[in-house]
Amino acid sequence: MTELMFDTIENGGVASACGFSAGGIHAGFRGDPNRLDMALVEADELCPAAGVFTQNVFCAASVTVSREHLEGRGFGLARALVVNSGIANAATGTIGLENARLTAEIVAQHIGCAQEDVLVASTGVIGQQLDITPFKTGVPALHEELKRTGSTNESGHKAACAIMTTDTVPKEYAISYTSADPAFEGCVFTVGGMAKGSGMIMPNMATMISVLTSDAPVPAELLHEALLEAVGKSFNKVTVDGDTSTNDTCVLFASGKAAEGRDRSAFTKESVAYAEFKKALCEVTQHLARAMARDGEGATKLVTVIVRGAANDADADAAARTVANSPLVKTALYGHDANWGRIAGALGRSGAQFAQEDVDIDIMGMPVLRAGLPVPFDEEEALRRFEASEIVLEADLGAGSAQTTMWTCDFSHEYVSINGDYRS
Amino acid sequence: MTELMFDTIENGGVASACGFSAGGIHAGFRGDPNRLDMALVEADELCPAAGVFTQNVFCAASVTVSREHLEGRGFGLARALVVNSGIANAATGTIGLENARLTAEIVAQHIGCAQEDVLVASTGVIGQQLDITPFKTGVPALHEELKRTGSTNESGHKAACAIMTTDTVPKEYAISYTSADPAFEGCVFTVGGMAKGSGMIMPNMATMISVLTSDAPVPAELLHEALLEAVGKSFNKVTVDGDTSTNDTCVLFASGKAAEGRDRSAFTKESVAYAEFKKALCEVTQHLARAMARDGEGATKLVTVIVRGAANDADADAAARTVANSPLVKTALYGHDANWGRIAGALGRSGAQFAQEDVDIDIMGMPVLRAGLPVPFDEEEALRRFEASEIVLEADLGAGSAQTTMWTCDFSHEYVSINGDYRS
Repeated sequence: MTELMFDTIENGGVASACGFSAGGIHAGFRGDPNRLDMALVEADELCPAAGVFTQNVFCAASVTVSREHLEGRGFGLARALVVNSGIANAATGTIGLENARLTAEIVAQHIGCAQEDVLVASTGVIGQQLDITPFKTGVPALHEELKRTGSTNESGHKAACAIMTTDTVPKEYAISYTSADPAFEGCVFTVGGMAKGSGMIMPNMATMISVLTSDAPVPAELLHEALLEAVGKSFNKVTVDGDTSTNDTCVLFASGKAAEGRDRSAFTKESVAYAEFKKALCEVTQHLARAMARDGEGATKLVTVIVRGAANDADADAAARTVANSPLVKTALYGHDANWGRIAGALGRSGAQFAQEDVDIDIMGMPVLRAGLPVPFDEEEALRRFEASEIVLEADLGAGSAQTTMWTCDFSHEYVSINGDYRS
Repeated sequence: MTELMFDTIENGGVASACGFSAGGIHAGFRGDPNRLDMALVEADELCPAAGVFTQNVFCAASVTVSREHLEGRGFGLARALVVNSGIANAATGTIGLENARLTAEIVAQHIGCAQEDVLVASTGVIGQQLDITPFKTGVPALHEELKRTGSTNESGHKAACAIMTTDTVPKEYAISYTSADPAFEGCVFTVGGMAKGSGMIMPNMATMISVLTSDAPVPAELLHEALLEAVGKSFNKVTVDGDTSTNDTCVLFASGKAAEGRDRSAFTKESVAYAEFKKALCEVTQHLARAMARDGEGATKLVTVIVRGAANDADADAAARTVANSPLVKTALYGHDANWGRIAGALGRSGAQFAQEDVDIDIMGMPVLRAGLPVPFDEEEALRRFEASEIVLEADLGAGSAQTTMWTCDFSHEYVSINGDYRS
């Protein structure tokens, strides 16, 4: 496979791929009438869809219902996804489940599809029942709007805004690429999506939600596998505070619309087209994941943690995750402190197997530890490099050849204010 | 066994048990001449001793040497422990190991024992070599002082002060009890100790160090088991920020001096005296552990997390630990916010097995969640209860009968300042 080139679609997002429309309105879940609080993503037809959801035992009703709808069909198919922000519909018992099903039913009625074809997602305050009224009035209005303008960047942008909670910026991205697969020669496929930041639960919930769309003809039986792989290399490598939420939802739709007239059965697990798609999907999810980390609550920096030389993938992940979640590392980065001792301490307690005398650490490209011993470095140069908006920490454990990358942010006074002062 | 009564020894600590002396001086590891920076604990004779140490791969040289000295003899015996604060002697390679051995050698020469009889501990900045000079001048001076005043509360107090780093108060405790064991009738045994706070590494290192002494005649082969059990219920149930340090050290000595003239062979694994000792030891370590959590960096509250109804001990520990380490829970408590949603979220992601509809949560004795659903509570009453210096969080998972208690502290702006602003 020759090197795959991606073109970034300017202002692109969840509505960029052919066969999808998306939008957002103020439906009434939030008090502020200027704040969008409901997003709808529709496929022109029932199409392959896949989802991955939070592993939290206290999962939201919307998670339970979306999982049922996708799994009820074996390999997933779906027509639409509706998201509300403001209320998480978590810890809401059987009433919450009924409300989530009713939400899907309302959307299904207006689109003209089965209830099971509609997925639902919620983000916001835990423990409050969802008011169904905003769906009753908002869904018909938004559905009509989607018919008119739902495929524009502006409309996709509104959807990205409507799912925000404590996010400071909407997160959208879309790319296109020309397939080199003989069966799809000349086809230009698009992969795009939107996401909202991960970070906290109730009441300023920043649960991760991401909706991805593509017009590649990915068959239903491959879509879940492709999504799992991409999420494993992107959203599952992001941490803001280690607090996995109750509502995490990531859904991917594939319309196949950019391959009209082609033999879709050529899109097999072994095809070049599938390999291309997975690469493109990963490109989009990693972009969104980085945007999420950069916009973590109170964050002043994006922090990229690269661990190499681990004995295996699990050790690489444990080592990188422990560094990325360490309050001591994150407060040091907030203070522009090249504190390798805290990084070494986090690696050492991560459970990863290695010998301390084999470890190298670099901060912003500066060697600070070699073979387990400190390397003198220029403090002024370090402070200068800390001015960058992205901080890169690299560790080589010298124990093997596994490696991974994680994204996080620094830990600021503002994080404590956002999460500690909200009622005062 | 009738109920065991403990008497708190006023101003008691590591020097309270018979057969021990302790003290602290400014030896010169720190620049400030008013700050004590070296502690010495001596037993009158070689006696049973046990130690537990950090699991961190980046363990300090002092940890390696103390472990060797205790394990070199099979069941441990020791005569003394020397602690310096200011320098951690971690990430210091073979030079660090030589310095740790030299430290033990200096102490051994002045006491007149073997190098292997001396344990060493360090706490402070990672990655700097230990200067051996302060030991050369400080150890003889402190050893002489111990001969004169080393068994007084004041001298024990100096030892507790000398091991402090970012601790705001020294941590000491001692209790005595009258044995009901027929073989030790009338014997009054003492268990006491000192500790320094856990919290962070380099440069304001608050590595946990604790030294415990008793005059009960605990045989060497039981001492390690007793210490492991007590540490498992106390220090290992404390978390400030989840960052296990490189230098954690907890050492226990047992002189047997309060059982002079008795048949020590009666102190068996099945004896009442051993059961009493384990209870007393746990009482002391839990007291010190709570003091450590209360004095966590930036802490405004002691937080006690009790998990009941877990399927097994590992689940209970995982659930309590995840709540106790959650930045979202801890910032909420700092903000006096009875935010049960964050507690539920932490329980749900802990890996413990349970069903959300079986979970009850209480905050400061107020039911906030029952059978997975929120219970309305009086917000003003909640704010009033948050004025207390100790916050108690209780969760029943409804999945079994295992339970545990963990201690932590809240998460404040001050924590971020201490760890993020230290160079500015």
